[in-house]
Amino acid sequence: MASYHKPESKTIQELKDIANKLRIHSIEATQASKSGHPTSCSSMAEIMSVLFFHTMRYKVSAPRDPSSDRFILSKGHAAPILYAAWAEAGLFPASELLNLRKFDSDLEGHPTPRLNFIDVGTGSLGQGLSVAAGMAYVGKNFDKASYRVYCLIGDGEAAEGSIWEALHFSSYYKLDNLCAIFDINRLGQSEPTSLQHNMEVYRKRLEAFGFNALVVDGHDVEELAKAFHEAQNTKGRPTAILAKTFKGKSFPNIEDLENWHGKPLGTKANEITQYLTGLLKNTGPLGLHPQKPLVDDAPVVDIKNIKLASPPSYKLGEQVATRLAYGTALAKLAKNNPRVIALDGDTKNSTFAEKIKTVDPSRFIEGFIAEQNVVGVAIGAACRDRTVAFVSAFATFFTRAFDQIRMGAISQTNVNFVGSHCGVSIGEDGPSQMGLEDIAMFRTIPGSTVFYPCDAVSTERAVQLAANTKGVCFIRTSRPATAVVYKNDETFAPGKAKVLRSNVEDQVLVIGAGVTLHEALKSADELLAKAGIHVRVIDPFTIKPLDAQTIIKNAREAGGRIVTVEDHYAEGGLGEAVISAVSLERNIIVKKLAVPEVPRSGPPNVLIDNYGISARKITSAIQDVLKL
Amino acid sequence: MASYHKPESKTIQELKDIANKLRIHSIEATQASKSGHPTSCSSMAEIMSVLFFHTMRYKVSAPRDPSSDRFILSKGHAAPILYAAWAEAGLFPASELLNLRKFDSDLEGHPTPRLNFIDVGTGSLGQGLSVAAGMAYVGKNFDKASYRVYCLIGDGEAAEGSIWEALHFSSYYKLDNLCAIFDINRLGQSEPTSLQHNMEVYRKRLEAFGFNALVVDGHDVEELAKAFHEAQNTKGRPTAILAKTFKGKSFPNIEDLENWHGKPLGTKANEITQYLTGLLKNTGPLGLHPQKPLVDDAPVVDIKNIKLASPPSYKLGEQVATRLAYGTALAKLAKNNPRVIALDGDTKNSTFAEKIKTVDPSRFIEGFIAEQNVVGVAIGAACRDRTVAFVSAFATFFTRAFDQIRMGAISQTNVNFVGSHCGVSIGEDGPSQMGLEDIAMFRTIPGSTVFYPCDAVSTERAVQLAANTKGVCFIRTSRPATAVVYKNDETFAPGKAKVLRSNVEDQVLVIGAGVTLHEALKSADELLAKAGIHVRVIDPFTIKPLDAQTIIKNAREAGGRIVTVEDHYAEGGLGEAVISAVSLERNIIVKKLAVPEVPRSGPPNVLIDNYGISARKITSAIQDVLKL
Repeated sequence: MASYHKPESKTIQELKDIANKLRIHSIEATQASKSGHPTSCSSMAEIMSVLFFHTMRYKVSAPRDPSSDRFILSKGHAAPILYAAWAEAGLFPASELLNLRKFDSDLEGHPTPRLNFIDVGTGSLGQGLSVAAGMAYVGKNFDKASYRVYCLIGDGEAAEGSIWEALHFSSYYKLDNLCAIFDINRLGQSEPTSLQHNMEVYRKRLEAFGFNALVVDGHDVEELAKAFHEAQNTKGRPTAILAKTFKGKSFPNIEDLENWHGKPLGTKANEITQYLTGLLKNTGPLGLHPQKPLVDDAPVVDIKNIKLASPPSYKLGEQVATRLAYGTALAKLAKNNPRVIALDGDTKNSTFAEKIKTVDPSRFIEGFIAEQNVVGVAIGAACRDRTVAFVSAFATFFTRAFDQIRMGAISQTNVNFVGSHCGVSIGEDGPSQMGLEDIAMFRTIPGSTVFYPCDAVSTERAVQLAANTKGVCFIRTSRPATAVVYKNDETFAPGKAKVLRSNVEDQVLVIGAGVTLHEALKSADELLAKAGIHVRVIDPFTIKPLDAQTIIKNAREAGGRIVTVEDHYAEGGLGEAVISAVSLERNIIVKKLAVPEVPRSGPPNVLIDNYGISARKITSAIQDVLKL
Repeated sequence: MASYHKPESKTIQELKDIANKLRIHSIEATQASKSGHPTSCSSMAEIMSVLFFHTMRYKVSAPRDPSSDRFILSKGHAAPILYAAWAEAGLFPASELLNLRKFDSDLEGHPTPRLNFIDVGTGSLGQGLSVAAGMAYVGKNFDKASYRVYCLIGDGEAAEGSIWEALHFSSYYKLDNLCAIFDINRLGQSEPTSLQHNMEVYRKRLEAFGFNALVVDGHDVEELAKAFHEAQNTKGRPTAILAKTFKGKSFPNIEDLENWHGKPLGTKANEITQYLTGLLKNTGPLGLHPQKPLVDDAPVVDIKNIKLASPPSYKLGEQVATRLAYGTALAKLAKNNPRVIALDGDTKNSTFAEKIKTVDPSRFIEGFIAEQNVVGVAIGAACRDRTVAFVSAFATFFTRAFDQIRMGAISQTNVNFVGSHCGVSIGEDGPSQMGLEDIAMFRTIPGSTVFYPCDAVSTERAVQLAANTKGVCFIRTSRPATAVVYKNDETFAPGKAKVLRSNVEDQVLVIGAGVTLHEALKSADELLAKAGIHVRVIDPFTIKPLDAQTIIKNAREAGGRIVTVEDHYAEGGLGEAVISAVSLERNIIVKKLAVPEVPRSGPPNVLIDNYGISARKITSAIQDVLKL
């Protein structure tokens, strides 16, 4: 271990003073906003002081510099002290802190990347460490750079299972460039935490989870500085600093007391601010300043305009599962750009994410069965545009990470999600494995793009488009093989539907996607052959954005009648997207076919018919709407 | 500890034989279905044999008997061996096992309560222990009965954070009637698990999480019997049995090998079945039979027709937050029925779940910040109709438990979810705390009822109705105080909307809910007063089921124009529910007002207006649709 030099006493005193200055800022900002969490800030004041003015190496002039250390505030409600640290570091005037939580300020109640010094939104608890682990994984394995990642976690949120997923991941991958700091201030929102100040239990748990666990007095800047030094010099495993702290530290008659969560200090504020001011020894300008990185060793990365290494290569009518085409396209992208990576939680042989390993095994991150952490790691890995991350799972298991995905949108992430095994068409495994709510879930994500390709060609193009599309992308793939319907040179774009059957005599428009698009084509062809009824068929390609213009135009040409059919529950999916798109059109009616109840196990074709989304059921629905 | 008597050698041999019979059944069933997980069954064969024929006390004649021990198969993909155990126990003929995964059989690919011996659906991994903990909590604290709860967990799923949430909960509440069995068979789906057979790491983690942790040879029936005995006699903390096992145990040339996950044995099946048959020492009828409970000491419970202890008592126009009315109603229900309980994850003073403590502190279960486990515990607590459980959280944090809620529907649970702090109307805390996708999420749950009351009176009635409504119920409550609009004696029912403004001259129908209902009323009143424009206003009360009949009738009477307005994202919420309900009506158009993007922090009124759902914006939308 590099030898530890105790900081000079002047430095120690300045670090103490900075901690109290940060406390004062936190009080003043939450007084101004009349809301916020000053006591949650106070418990971590010394940690922030030591990190930002002694330990971390970063550039105030370039907060998202790739070679700088990263800091994630997992307990996002302590935002005011994070803002105060950056103000004291010199990024913006401290007077701006008084704009906390105002509508025209980016200093929001919880941190978001609207601020240039924030990588990800936090505030839904227990998520920060997964993000930090993703950053550390990239730093160690892809950037191979010397930056370190610090994540501050509240003791209340340490009850979240996602924290333990992230801890396991971090020790398994030996992320010794990661330091997790637990601010153990004993008090939750509504009562004391379950472990209160039982530091030995924390130590045992962290050690059992493979961490170098250091219990420290979280209000002793010297102890903290030494612990961070030990963390920097501990190889082969990450370090956890278990800081025993007090909520509302140095707020007389508030410190360590219940019922002070999430409340500004009100009439007590002045007195406490005066008390804290009285603790300051240096009232003049600071001698301490943030330290810059020793080396700028993070490589330059180019993730623009990523293309398939070779175009789709299928025969029309060839039977290929779209989940397999995902794997093929992923490998093609990875071949063309060294920053394309894939993550999965032990389903890589079902989602076909494993195909990236044929190009470069190191580009695949196995997250084991811990979907929340896998998603968080991906979000971290994609921060500062270091990688283009694809995360795959059975579509329905992304429900496990809905909160992480939701926060991903607030974090302005560009992570791509690929959900296989959607709908009843998976067959015998039964409802627990069927994605029947995933379109609804991903449609709610602001700015999301939801691809639902029906064949291998469009799947490959969806994968390429997702790699280059900002915001959350979701690609829904299917388990069964389906026929290739597009030529290899067909071009695709988000929000551009394809009209697959069209005739001037069309009386109804059917919109299917994925497996149901094929059922729709079958129904249309049979109705024409057997009954002379002309049916128009559209493949929307993306459910969001939905090509409303094409749908409305074609619906008008087809008698104002639409039938939608989806391998998904009736709420929030393709049907409701279409119905929403035509809601201001008088004289367009829509009949929606969707899975109406919890399905059973059975062969795919039996299920598709039984739950009302087969060609036979589409034909019946068409005959019904022709009467309307 | 009660002294341990080693089983007779005849018993030991029979337990070994039963294990191998269960293996044979698992092979034969998955051969018949041509899919399934025989190797995942084989690793746990001895565990099942000892549990079902030596340790557990239950009634084969009454699988849901309240006084019987419970068994939860968290690794639901091993369903065939669970079915086989019940068949060998005598519940149904073993020949039925060959109907595995057929559409007309309830022996689905993963267990569901369509089978009378299954309490909850499993198959989404990592969820079983929370459910088991809920059952154990009820057994210990409400039933005060002697039944025990056993939960079998796969080693792959032990990576799920929800398992660690449940472990912490179980030791914190000293659930010594709970026994968690880890089937540590070393192999996941696509590669070995991260910890493989590192039994010491498992032991350290389980001990650190407060369990009595016993490492055993999971294929040694004698060791297992002894460990279960120790578990039964360990007081003050739950026991974890860490069973070292082999995937595909006793399947020659398959045991402990990769690439055999989720595959029937195909052409190898006959040979392996013959090998296993050769291991059997007793070929005649079994001497061992399941043991019945020693005492029937679970009390009779009545949870039918639960009513508020007193009717709502408010003044018209009084300002009351619906979240507060939830707490009031919860306490009133709890007063009238001893089986009404509430759970929350350290937000009880914000959701007002804490009000139940004024009636009976023991009726509240604090789950700390671990939403997945809180939901799982509630589902377990409600099994076998032992309790009526209300779970509360900020609405958006139910996204953390979407997978558990989804599985809750498969489990036929009657748990009631109450989500506070919905929408931008919470104000300054910012987007991470705002429920903007919760309606969409709960609408996708099959058979769910989604209440969205606008005032205190309707909230109290929603709470009473939820307590008596089958399936998942969700009640969406708001943070700000809103005016009471209903008289105390108003009656409510799911799927019955209220028409609040109506006139023969109405030109448009506005549908709002919660806070936006009040904006709609304000807009309607102002338009009438200032512009003489008559606007009809409907409060849907439940978003699902939605009162389509009332909406269509009133929309027709109001010019075929609807404006919907919701404090929710545009996808899957109130607007799309309404649009779906009128989709087959020509001549009804719908304009949807909803939050269009990730909101910022700011005062509630500023946000409501800025994101387009204020009275002013409704007025503007009405003026727009009047031109259409």
